[in-house]
Amino acid sequence: MTSMDYSKAAEWKIIERTFNAERLGKCESIMCQGNGYLGLRNAADEFNAGEQRNLFVAGTFNKFDENEVTELPNAADVTRLNIHLDGTLFNLQYGRTIEYSRELCLRNGETVRTVVWESPNGKQYRLEFRRFVSMERKHLIAQKLSVTPLSGDAEVMIIGGINGQMNNTGSQHFSEGEKRLYDGRVMQYTQTTGQSKIDFFLNTAFSFRLNDAQLDQKGFIVMDRRLIQQEFDLHIPAGQTLTMEKLSNVYTNRDRECEGKSFAQLQEYSLGNLKEACAVGYDTLMQESADAWNALVWNNVPVTIDSENPMDQLAIRFAQYHLYVMTPAHDNRMNVGAKGLSGEAYKGHTFWDTEMFILPYFIYTAPEVARSLEEYRWLGLTGAHKKAASNDYEGAQFPWEAAWIDDGEVTPVWGAADIITGLPTKIWSGFIEQHITADVAFGAWQYYTVTGDQDFMDKFGYELILDTAKFWASRLEDGEDGLLHINDVVGPDEYKEHVDDNAFTNYMAAWNIRKAMEYAAMLKAEKPEIYARLAEKLDLGRVEEQWAQKLPLIYLPQPREDGVIPQDKTYLGLKQIDLTKYKNQQNIGSIYRDYNQHQISNMQVSKQADIMIMFMLLENQFDLDVKRANWNYYEPRTLHDSSLSLSTHTILANDMGNREMAYDLFQRAAAIDMGPNMKSSDAGIHAASIAGIWQSTVFGFGGVRMLEGRLRINPNLPEQWKELSFFIHWKGQKIAVQITKEQLKLTNLTATASVELTVNGAGYIFADTLTVTL
Amino acid sequence: MTSMDYSKAAEWKIIERTFNAERLGKCESIMCQGNGYLGLRNAADEFNAGEQRNLFVAGTFNKFDENEVTELPNAADVTRLNIHLDGTLFNLQYGRTIEYSRELCLRNGETVRTVVWESPNGKQYRLEFRRFVSMERKHLIAQKLSVTPLSGDAEVMIIGGINGQMNNTGSQHFSEGEKRLYDGRVMQYTQTTGQSKIDFFLNTAFSFRLNDAQLDQKGFIVMDRRLIQQEFDLHIPAGQTLTMEKLSNVYTNRDRECEGKSFAQLQEYSLGNLKEACAVGYDTLMQESADAWNALVWNNVPVTIDSENPMDQLAIRFAQYHLYVMTPAHDNRMNVGAKGLSGEAYKGHTFWDTEMFILPYFIYTAPEVARSLEEYRWLGLTGAHKKAASNDYEGAQFPWEAAWIDDGEVTPVWGAADIITGLPTKIWSGFIEQHITADVAFGAWQYYTVTGDQDFMDKFGYELILDTAKFWASRLEDGEDGLLHINDVVGPDEYKEHVDDNAFTNYMAAWNIRKAMEYAAMLKAEKPEIYARLAEKLDLGRVEEQWAQKLPLIYLPQPREDGVIPQDKTYLGLKQIDLTKYKNQQNIGSIYRDYNQHQISNMQVSKQADIMIMFMLLENQFDLDVKRANWNYYEPRTLHDSSLSLSTHTILANDMGNREMAYDLFQRAAAIDMGPNMKSSDAGIHAASIAGIWQSTVFGFGGVRMLEGRLRINPNLPEQWKELSFFIHWKGQKIAVQITKEQLKLTNLTATASVELTVNGAGYIFADTLTVTL
Repeated sequence: MTSMDYSKAAEWKIIERTFNAERLGKCESIMCQGNGYLGLRNAADEFNAGEQRNLFVAGTFNKFDENEVTELPNAADVTRLNIHLDGTLFNLQYGRTIEYSRELCLRNGETVRTVVWESPNGKQYRLEFRRFVSMERKHLIAQKLSVTPLSGDAEVMIIGGINGQMNNTGSQHFSEGEKRLYDGRVMQYTQTTGQSKIDFFLNTAFSFRLNDAQLDQKGFIVMDRRLIQQEFDLHIPAGQTLTMEKLSNVYTNRDRECEGKSFAQLQEYSLGNLKEACAVGYDTLMQESADAWNALVWNNVPVTIDSENPMDQLAIRFAQYHLYVMTPAHDNRMNVGAKGLSGEAYKGHTFWDTEMFILPYFIYTAPEVARSLEEYRWLGLTGAHKKAASNDYEGAQFPWEAAWIDDGEVTPVWGAADIITGLPTKIWSGFIEQHITADVAFGAWQYYTVTGDQDFMDKFGYELILDTAKFWASRLEDGEDGLLHINDVVGPDEYKEHVDDNAFTNYMAAWNIRKAMEYAAMLKAEKPEIYARLAEKLDLGRVEEQWAQKLPLIYLPQPREDGVIPQDKTYLGLKQIDLTKYKNQQNIGSIYRDYNQHQISNMQVSKQADIMIMFMLLENQFDLDVKRANWNYYEPRTLHDSSLSLSTHTILANDMGNREMAYDLFQRAAAIDMGPNMKSSDAGIHAASIAGIWQSTVFGFGGVRMLEGRLRINPNLPEQWKELSFFIHWKGQKIAVQITKEQLKLTNLTATASVELTVNGAGYIFADTLTVTL
Repeated sequence: MTSMDYSKAAEWKIIERTFNAERLGKCESIMCQGNGYLGLRNAADEFNAGEQRNLFVAGTFNKFDENEVTELPNAADVTRLNIHLDGTLFNLQYGRTIEYSRELCLRNGETVRTVVWESPNGKQYRLEFRRFVSMERKHLIAQKLSVTPLSGDAEVMIIGGINGQMNNTGSQHFSEGEKRLYDGRVMQYTQTTGQSKIDFFLNTAFSFRLNDAQLDQKGFIVMDRRLIQQEFDLHIPAGQTLTMEKLSNVYTNRDRECEGKSFAQLQEYSLGNLKEACAVGYDTLMQESADAWNALVWNNVPVTIDSENPMDQLAIRFAQYHLYVMTPAHDNRMNVGAKGLSGEAYKGHTFWDTEMFILPYFIYTAPEVARSLEEYRWLGLTGAHKKAASNDYEGAQFPWEAAWIDDGEVTPVWGAADIITGLPTKIWSGFIEQHITADVAFGAWQYYTVTGDQDFMDKFGYELILDTAKFWASRLEDGEDGLLHINDVVGPDEYKEHVDDNAFTNYMAAWNIRKAMEYAAMLKAEKPEIYARLAEKLDLGRVEEQWAQKLPLIYLPQPREDGVIPQDKTYLGLKQIDLTKYKNQQNIGSIYRDYNQHQISNMQVSKQADIMIMFMLLENQFDLDVKRANWNYYEPRTLHDSSLSLSTHTILANDMGNREMAYDLFQRAAAIDMGPNMKSSDAGIHAASIAGIWQSTVFGFGGVRMLEGRLRINPNLPEQWKELSFFIHWKGQKIAVQITKEQLKLTNLTATASVELTVNGAGYIFADTLTVTL
């Protein structure tokens, strides 16, 4: 099994040292490039069997037909090159690979692949492939290839262009549009999504140099259905180097900057922008993009870990890199997909992963991005009303999976095979994984409480919290015990379907109603205009009565004598099996090889944190003994088959004071994408898990938490760390945090207001700096 | 460049001796398997980059969207296997291929691929892949794989099933249907075409043996979008052989035998038929299919060539094999595609290739198949009326490209790139390549005249000839010279667009009207009921007047003083260029690399036979000197860039007595698919050219021709041939024809009527046998 090389962590580099055709997915995903507007999977320039070549433009959802759900379509490819070296198609699966390395520099976002290859005909060549997606020009994809023949002269044929034959596991989202070669130089291809009617405009152009001399190389134009290419035939004298640059861009008429422009204008506009980039050239464009990365992240909100293990520093940079690649910060009609923009899995849909994992990162480091993600939820109210109404509920029931703002529920209905019945398994999450609605409310509250963004709250936040609470009031069911229950749900632990009184769901629903009641009362008293507007919109009078009446009656599962809280009504009574075989990060989901969903639902086995995540969100509602008892009960029964599980456990382990276990879990969480399992990232990076690396660091070891509206910092560095420093935003103040084992130092870089916080139980207020001895 | 091995011609075998990943298309096409109901391109079981894997069911046309034309969709694949040998994915592009051969036996239709492969891990394995499409059970595809480890024990993992992610150069024609595993054994997948709403039902099942012992091997079921597969993990002890059988079938609700059955019934029906086949097993099914091939072709209408060059015998068998693979003889709503069922090119559409090339084969060897192809044209009258009306013409204007019977014109509008403008080239054939309408009439007349099938004529044939003639009458244009012209057309030579008075078109239009007038007069006199029916339907009275008035005025280009007939109004005056660079079978279409269509239209260069094919069809209208003069003028200007060109030239060369040239052209014609150009068949076999091999043999060297309604045989064997024998049907009589250089021997095997014919100018009538000394 190939493994990644992280020895150049100090140089911010992720390196692959050997090529393995059966392990293509790993680097395609973890070296995925992008800027939130577009995501480009890092498939090699040359085609490989088993590759997954993807180009996604955030928010361009389309549905193939009525049998399928909407998804991010795989746009036309601009990266593939067929490179013939002295008549042989270049491919590392044959011939002899003499040197190989492929690296992503997290700092500047460039990938470099260096190969010395001996063709089956015995001739050797050095090839260097460079590629980046510009952080400065969000539509730009740049490639650079150098070919140096090592065995005399070489005849090189390069074929490439724009390939609209791409699809999503067989579903073709696009109608073919127009193909055109401008001035013998720039190829343009347009394509339009079938149902959502989004026009895509792609442009690409080649240029060549021999050593330092520009070549005026003419290409032969080839068109086929959904395909426009040029073929270039070049001669490289021995010892010289041919350099190719291929610059491409993509625009859509859904882009904010393209609004109001006609199809023809966008053809012209996108073409003009590509020509402009061509005039600048790869190297300068690369520098421009690196500067943008520095300004955005590395010189702005870096996280520094001085650890015995350089992987830790690399992991947090890996996380920050991908968080910016995946997040469509530019458009509040879009949110983050569960695989970011790095793979087709989960179809680009947004889950609770945003609120629980990704949103906190941006709340604390880039509040304006967090606000955009929150506005997306407010814009999603239309869909949430649709969903509630279709289920005979009131208020806003958020979709388990969300795509375009007004789509409503987009969770697919059928999934993997049931090994017993031989039929596809029904996916129940879209129907009954209902805690998402409280999660959204919690996210809005967290955003507001940390940032203090009152404007957001007035316009969007109160409404989100009240409207979701309205849903819960209508959702509660009368029990024979005189209490109110939430029956037939899926909780965070998706190995349990159709459970009653999932603890997480019930507690969060109660939290949501309680928070709504507090805000309704406050608004009535302090912001009567907002109250009046929302009262009319949401029928608040009637709904408030329901809240007051129902909140005290919600059944909240209590700890047993041994401190264990029943995850749901039946869990603790289910049969137990030996889970050793399945409790291993290499065997994600392997329990499905032996049992079907129905059988798994009837065993004491959990996919992921359930009670644990409740402890994290509602930290103060449970004491440490209860947390420990539940950890001891549930962790051994938890397979961590969801990538959302480990980082939560890391934080909890830290909260319980178990640094060693926390550090071990942190490393395992980081390994979900970066680790030696070369298949785990095939379908794309794990967005929530990646954000979890940051959470484990800052919330876990850094001990940062917003609790009941207050900032708390309880640092607890692992043995292996000497120092941890990072930046957080708190109520408009940007604070530098430096933690050693001995000391916590805070510096308010904004210093327009003083900051109040608790450190290890003691309260502090500071204006400029604060140093606390630990 | 890899080449094919035909040294086992005596064993009916086409063999590939070396694997070359850049030359996959050749064997995929020329070893294509099928039975007229379905066509399966011979892509290897294991996936290769650059492969083209196709499964077509005849007549199941669908249009992706309104921007595209209807085409034969690429159905779900059942053939692909991922074979992991001791953990390494089997693929010949890496590791070491120690032995390799791949052969198609034309006699029984089975392909056998034998490989000894050394994995990159150093272990060796012998694999034998067998496959056939049953000629007996038209829905059945059978695969058999044997694996023998040569370096100790082996762990083998085989993954396969049904893959509905296939598409046609990016266009996905299907909605996903249902996926199901029955009894842990049979996988079923359904899919439905998007616009034509044809339901496909596919079933597949694996079975395994170790040496001779049946294994009850359980597979692990895997489903993804459009995909159902099973994974089998097997252990092979050293020295033993694992044998896998995978049997699959495909049905559609368009199948005649499926009419009236519900979706659920067809799931059941197709499943039941697969289970039945599984009970029979590969070897017996194979024998059954071989028997069907023998009964249909090899024991029925074989062609035997005793030649110095065994390739000649192989070539004619190759032709007969593919004619039965490609022809949907089972359903008169279907016709033959220009690539048969062997590739996506030309989208499964039917061209004049049928009437000019393929139909004659069936007229003379299997009249019932020819009748089905003719009935397709009659059923196509709806579409032909649609086309005429849309162009403001009367009668039946046949589409240049035809798909489903009532589709009308389906020629795509945009083609390859124009190297000057950088835009796609407009394809004018669908608009103005109008001779097809006369070709269809000619085909009906030829069918009738050769077979004497009066029932066909009464029901369909007269109408076809009258209705097409009605079109021509409305099509003719008044010229300033007082004559009638046909302006702005494409003739058979497609390198000339927008020409006036293409000789072929004008002569054939005149022929069509003349034949219609003869039949109208005859019907009026002899079959008044038919006349009355058609008169009402076609408004014959008025139309007949037009015919009588217009026929004498049609401008028919006459030979110049030097005997050369102008191919069209301007051809002889166009500029001439040196064509040496382009006149080479390896460089098909290469003139487009230097000139665009407009430029080519304005040079004296022809793609294919134009005047020549007129000489063949209207043989008696032109004397030998004129033919020779035109050959000498046009042949040097003809690039033979159409695969329809060489066989016509072969026949003409023979007619002109040039046996040597004829034989040379025959071999070149056979080489279009079988020859050393490993790329020429990538897009599929050349259906017309393949039928042309038979025509060159029987019409060319055999000298068989229907002329003015009479059978004529002027044999003229090439130097290299000792004997040629074949079978023809003539007016209900099946005749064995044996030709040596000295003698022609005819045997009437039916002997229900005597047969009249001309041999080298002398008339004969015979009842049982006839021997003519040559």
